[in-house]
Amino acid sequence: MAKSSPRSPLAPAQIAVLPGIGGVRFATGAAGIRYQGRTDVMLALMDEGTTVAGVFTRSKCPSAPVDWCRAHLSGGTARALLVNSGNANAFTGKNGAEAAAFSARLAAKAAGVPLNQVFLASTGVIGEPLPAEKFSGVLEGLAASATPDGINAAAQAIMTTDTYPKLATASANFGGVEVTISGIAKGAGMIAPDMATMLSYVFTDAPIAAPVLQALLSRGVKGTFNAITVDSDTSTSDTLMLFATGAARQRGAVPVTDASDARLRPFRRALQNVLQSLAHQVVRDGEGARKFIAISVSGATSAAAAKRIALSIANSPLVKTAVAGEDANWGRVVMAVGKAGESADRDRLSISFCGIRVAHQGQRDPAYDEAQVSQAMKAPEISIGVDLGLGRGQATVWTCDLTKEYVAINGDYRS
Amino acid sequence: MAKSSPRSPLAPAQIAVLPGIGGVRFATGAAGIRYQGRTDVMLALMDEGTTVAGVFTRSKCPSAPVDWCRAHLSGGTARALLVNSGNANAFTGKNGAEAAAFSARLAAKAAGVPLNQVFLASTGVIGEPLPAEKFSGVLEGLAASATPDGINAAAQAIMTTDTYPKLATASANFGGVEVTISGIAKGAGMIAPDMATMLSYVFTDAPIAAPVLQALLSRGVKGTFNAITVDSDTSTSDTLMLFATGAARQRGAVPVTDASDARLRPFRRALQNVLQSLAHQVVRDGEGARKFIAISVSGATSAAAAKRIALSIANSPLVKTAVAGEDANWGRVVMAVGKAGESADRDRLSISFCGIRVAHQGQRDPAYDEAQVSQAMKAPEISIGVDLGLGRGQATVWTCDLTKEYVAINGDYRS
Repeated sequence: MAKSSPRSPLAPAQIAVLPGIGGVRFATGAAGIRYQGRTDVMLALMDEGTTVAGVFTRSKCPSAPVDWCRAHLSGGTARALLVNSGNANAFTGKNGAEAAAFSARLAAKAAGVPLNQVFLASTGVIGEPLPAEKFSGVLEGLAASATPDGINAAAQAIMTTDTYPKLATASANFGGVEVTISGIAKGAGMIAPDMATMLSYVFTDAPIAAPVLQALLSRGVKGTFNAITVDSDTSTSDTLMLFATGAARQRGAVPVTDASDARLRPFRRALQNVLQSLAHQVVRDGEGARKFIAISVSGATSAAAAKRIALSIANSPLVKTAVAGEDANWGRVVMAVGKAGESADRDRLSISFCGIRVAHQGQRDPAYDEAQVSQAMKAPEISIGVDLGLGRGQATVWTCDLTKEYVAINGDYRS
Repeated sequence: MAKSSPRSPLAPAQIAVLPGIGGVRFATGAAGIRYQGRTDVMLALMDEGTTVAGVFTRSKCPSAPVDWCRAHLSGGTARALLVNSGNANAFTGKNGAEAAAFSARLAAKAAGVPLNQVFLASTGVIGEPLPAEKFSGVLEGLAASATPDGINAAAQAIMTTDTYPKLATASANFGGVEVTISGIAKGAGMIAPDMATMLSYVFTDAPIAAPVLQALLSRGVKGTFNAITVDSDTSTSDTLMLFATGAARQRGAVPVTDASDARLRPFRRALQNVLQSLAHQVVRDGEGARKFIAISVSGATSAAAAKRIALSIANSPLVKTAVAGEDANWGRVVMAVGKAGESADRDRLSISFCGIRVAHQGQRDPAYDEAQVSQAMKAPEISIGVDLGLGRGQATVWTCDLTKEYVAINGDYRS
């Protein structure tokens, strides 16, 4: 059961109110799957011709809805997206696959769209059968009431233990026509017996062919959703999908069918901004988070090595507890660099906290002022910089600190 | 600075008092490197002809003493071992290597042994120069006072934030002659700015050639010290060494020079018992640990796959906090299996807690009694069993739970 937690101290000061996106309508409702007194179902309806791309959890034990989406993504088109919160329909065996198919059929019927253009996600408690029959009385009404300006309500309905809804938008010049990219996400507040899941849905009115859309998303995810970590644990349900309705054609936008088309450049940057904003919002709502941490590694032998080292630092409980304690503990950073398995030379390492170099060439920087660093570590946003001095590979990842509240949220439900 | 923590609730009821080992003498002293009012230097002296084997941290940023030991291990013989607590001599640049060499020269002179047969370790604060000159006034006296029955005092002197000394002993039939294997370890209580390090030293009077000794140790470590984890973090100083004095030759033991020699069988088992006992004692003293967790994975496609999955479960913060909360949260176990990257089939998974099957063939076991499992989860020793149903690979690893005390120990020193 979701506790009502106070909003994360790292939440944005204001929740953005997003404009509508041509070709998409949203509706939300209360199916009473688990939560009471709140919405728990979101239906998005897309106009005919909408293309779709998706990336999913790398878990070898994915949830039934992930299996469903993967199986139907190859068609490249989407008309409906049904997401429920409160039950993840994960680790539910054959019943889970049946519940997913049943839900999709209900949504297809209610929306009057082909079954294989319906996409699904479920988030919430795992291991319990999804009571998909609860959708029966709800979806018809949702399909009828969907409106273009419902995206904020949609972001609310998919929350589980999130302390705030996550939204981001950007516009881009698309061959002379302005298009919009808007997205929502839910993240990483975990509470037993729920398993938090990262879900994110991004919509645009730009006309982009499905293979190009997939290439954009697969590339875009690398430095954004695949560069964040809260606790190194991976949900069985993680899903990120991108829908392109093509509604901007009515304003003269010409479809892009080639990933190397120069018109995509501003779009790619705008998409990156939206994905990065959503990914950062997920980290800022990490369980018990009090500090948002950016970790930048440079001078590695390759970009892949830099990212692996950065994630080793970001996932280290000792580094994360040190930041929680406002301690610029570079020794633990050295430890995390050393255990990453990538090339490193102890005596070439430079390490900075909040832009202040604390270690250089394998030793404490004699010039560093501990009082100044201690002061900087009190801020809610912390940067850690590591230069390996070996090559030109670099990467940045984002995480949050590890606090007693994380343990309380994830371990205290029996006490 | 080491806090005086109460003894871990998982500590052995009694600390073993170990018998002497022929050919080894121990001495301890207070050099005042960091700690006051306790011993912080341990010198072990071995008779001529003692062979040596070692395994060290896989960190790419090892400490200066690790570099020293690796460089001198190829000689295969050892006469002295010098360990200090309070300063790790890690990330101390060229000064660190010089301090290590200086310490070794002092020990060689005090003990009257060749420099290249001196081994070293340092554990404690990192990034601060080791004041090796403090050994000067101490080592002569230690060398003079070393006694065969000093191993318990040695285990005390190498502690940093351990809450109890770790000792284990076993005897074995060695071609008709009884030999003894005795070891000490220090572990994994971490407190800023100290970095905990696993150090372990095992001694035997059996006569075994160095290459055979190394083969025994490299094999023995796999299911023991390399099958434990507290928080997935790897020290820059981890060291495990095995010394064989050969003193049992005086009682008729014939040296073994071939790793396939049948006389090694009982010895190998006894060594395994000592290593496993020491490794488990390290986990039982993990920071903030309240539960000792054994994780057994079977039915994997290979033993290596089983171990990787077991470690993924053991290192999952969500699994560890669930155990802290006495919750048999098999959903998080599924999650950890899924993220390990090894072959797994969601619908073939069986999961048990404390011997009670809670999930079977990808679904909650309908027969399982939640009250019974909840009762079992209150015990200080928890077992988690996972059967993948794919092959014959199996492995067991050991860890502890993740508690608020872990975060407090590692993050609270600034507050």
